[in-house]
Amino acid sequence: MKRVVMLGFGTVGSGVMELIERNRAYLKSKYHNEMQLTGILVRDLEKYKGRGADGLLTTSFDEILAQQPDIVIEVMGGIEPANTYVRTLLERGVSVVTANKDLIAEYGLELMEIARTNNASVSFEAAVGGGIPVIKPFRESLKGNRIGSIAGIVNGTTNFILTKMYEENLEYNVTLKMAQEAGFAEADPTADVKGYDAARKLCILSSIAYDKMIRWKEIKVEGVDGVTKTDIQNARDIDRKIKLLAVSTRDGSEIHCSVRPTLVHKHSALGHIDNEFNAIEVEGDAVGKVMFTGRGAGKFPTASAVYGDLLDVLTGKTDMVLPLNDDTNYKLSKYYSRRSKWLVRLKVTSMPETIDLVLGSFPIHALKLYRLNDLDNVFFVVETEDELELYEKIVEMKSQNFVQDVKYFLMYD
Amino acid sequence: MKRVVMLGFGTVGSGVMELIERNRAYLKSKYHNEMQLTGILVRDLEKYKGRGADGLLTTSFDEILAQQPDIVIEVMGGIEPANTYVRTLLERGVSVVTANKDLIAEYGLELMEIARTNNASVSFEAAVGGGIPVIKPFRESLKGNRIGSIAGIVNGTTNFILTKMYEENLEYNVTLKMAQEAGFAEADPTADVKGYDAARKLCILSSIAYDKMIRWKEIKVEGVDGVTKTDIQNARDIDRKIKLLAVSTRDGSEIHCSVRPTLVHKHSALGHIDNEFNAIEVEGDAVGKVMFTGRGAGKFPTASAVYGDLLDVLTGKTDMVLPLNDDTNYKLSKYYSRRSKWLVRLKVTSMPETIDLVLGSFPIHALKLYRLNDLDNVFFVVETEDELELYEKIVEMKSQNFVQDVKYFLMYD
Repeated sequence: MKRVVMLGFGTVGSGVMELIERNRAYLKSKYHNEMQLTGILVRDLEKYKGRGADGLLTTSFDEILAQQPDIVIEVMGGIEPANTYVRTLLERGVSVVTANKDLIAEYGLELMEIARTNNASVSFEAAVGGGIPVIKPFRESLKGNRIGSIAGIVNGTTNFILTKMYEENLEYNVTLKMAQEAGFAEADPTADVKGYDAARKLCILSSIAYDKMIRWKEIKVEGVDGVTKTDIQNARDIDRKIKLLAVSTRDGSEIHCSVRPTLVHKHSALGHIDNEFNAIEVEGDAVGKVMFTGRGAGKFPTASAVYGDLLDVLTGKTDMVLPLNDDTNYKLSKYYSRRSKWLVRLKVTSMPETIDLVLGSFPIHALKLYRLNDLDNVFFVVETEDELELYEKIVEMKSQNFVQDVKYFLMYD
Repeated sequence: MKRVVMLGFGTVGSGVMELIERNRAYLKSKYHNEMQLTGILVRDLEKYKGRGADGLLTTSFDEILAQQPDIVIEVMGGIEPANTYVRTLLERGVSVVTANKDLIAEYGLELMEIARTNNASVSFEAAVGGGIPVIKPFRESLKGNRIGSIAGIVNGTTNFILTKMYEENLEYNVTLKMAQEAGFAEADPTADVKGYDAARKLCILSSIAYDKMIRWKEIKVEGVDGVTKTDIQNARDIDRKIKLLAVSTRDGSEIHCSVRPTLVHKHSALGHIDNEFNAIEVEGDAVGKVMFTGRGAGKFPTASAVYGDLLDVLTGKTDMVLPLNDDTNYKLSKYYSRRSKWLVRLKVTSMPETIDLVLGSFPIHALKLYRLNDLDNVFFVVETEDELELYEKIVEMKSQNFVQDVKYFLMYD
């Protein structure tokens, strides 16, 4: 019988409690194992009363500690006080199962080091892709591979927003409100719409895949709040959708990680991942491309991942190997380093000069000019060796007096 | 240092050896673990010489036993002698990692029971979906769920054949030959084209997912050898592709498993799984639908899965819990038990009588008549509560003297 405590009792927490109850008999008969939820830490007793756990609720972390738990489920989210609590518990040898990507992206490596020295473990399947099993495949099943790239749609909120913009031809602000009303976006949507949430998830996955510690604050992140109806329409004109894509590549000792609005073909595998769905594609030198898709958030999908982690702790399947490696010996490249196409959009004051400029900037065989009849929305597609080659031309374009604005999108086909 | 032996040294075996070599330093530095391949059992020494393992080859199983291995990698395939060898090794406490779906589907449960009593384990990630991590997610990550259904494209050979039929408008026999020339089909393609291979994989997945032992010989299996160019064309006419779909559903204590040519929408997730690619979709009550896709066979994809399993054995992450449950307390239903559409195709001698028959057999709102101008190829789509409702009408149709042939396809949208 393992004693389990929970920090936080929001949507995910109540889902986890329900799964523990639902699977109690099964756990005993199949795994000859039992767990007992002995305490739930909340901020406000009144708020969480009447949810079927009244006897377990406490506002005192000391009381949680006094219960001498074997396992802690951390579903409170945010950095503090989650970080302090988890750290304190780990130091007492309590294994941690968490859904907290902010915490793992920020302090995961440190926490795992504390876990290792205290014969405990940190599991975080729920931190990326909700219920989609992806952390464990990355940590274990695919470890015979050298991973070369990852591409994912890992934020359901922004995917919902972009899907609505595409399907209903709406502006960003309108769809953000829809997402908030549908419960897919929080009152303060900053972490989602600015791409921070996706960046944290990408860095967690990349750190495991490449065995290098990658910090999300050091990578290129561009949110969806700059995407307009016209951008979506331009993409549609060339059979693409815009997705907030989290991409990382490894070439030798150089790693590129970025999160940004990206064009994917509407009939590609990623092009079908709509609304709140997530997808993570990974390419290994042995396995080739493997993709995982499903619901990336929500009460029960997330609880499903937490439960899987709990089972690992109960059956002794966690390990002391650091999935987030402390190796920082690599070069983080600011620019996407592989051959790719880009959609470039300009706002200009003179069409003839713009056409001359574009034709003069890129070899003709690498170019497709799409829209040359609207000064506010000139766009073309160009293929370059890497992002740097493009970026240098973009800087040049911006310096022209007839060019008022330039934006460009990665095309990930 | 763990002593590892290998049974068989074909394509997959040499891939595994290469991954072991390639990851040797990594295994030591990251996992503080080492393994040493000490012997490889082959039938014919001469045949396997010059492949970089000459000193390890032996034709004597006794010699393999004498090496007192800790782990055996079984990649010889087929039931015997693999079964006898694996059993003998398990009885000596040697843990087994196998890619052999025939063996697992047939004797997996027995082997795992022997393993349990001898403190060993049986791992078989490579048996389903090649390098796609799917067995471990089913065994572990998703265990908090009650699984309701599985649908998969799990045989690359037939998927290659069906893709070529669709894309190049060719008959089955021609594309089978293409698959053989491309190395995707064996000289004797029976197990693939008759659906047996897919049935074995489906039963392995279903047995784990439902915690019931399901025998592939007891389920409905229909291969691709009866699919014609006209069937493909009919499907195309209504925006569908034909895939050899392995499907299982659980409703209460009733389980349905079947493998058969099935229509999927060309723009659905499964409709994009072409050529030798595989996909497995699973629906759990907590997680919702999750899908895994990738290459389902081949040297390195399969070796990737074997290596992941080896790592589990080395790091002590295998367990004594039987993934294939010995519980046979369920009803196996012959008929697909959920509401669905079906494409029904008839060969008839009288069109007016046929139209009367069809209109008299199903309520008009459930029907879509598509082709009524070719006596050899009349087809319509009908939606029914379950397959049994359809089947009874089909039997009735077949009894009419103006009906020469009836075939029908599940539509999985």
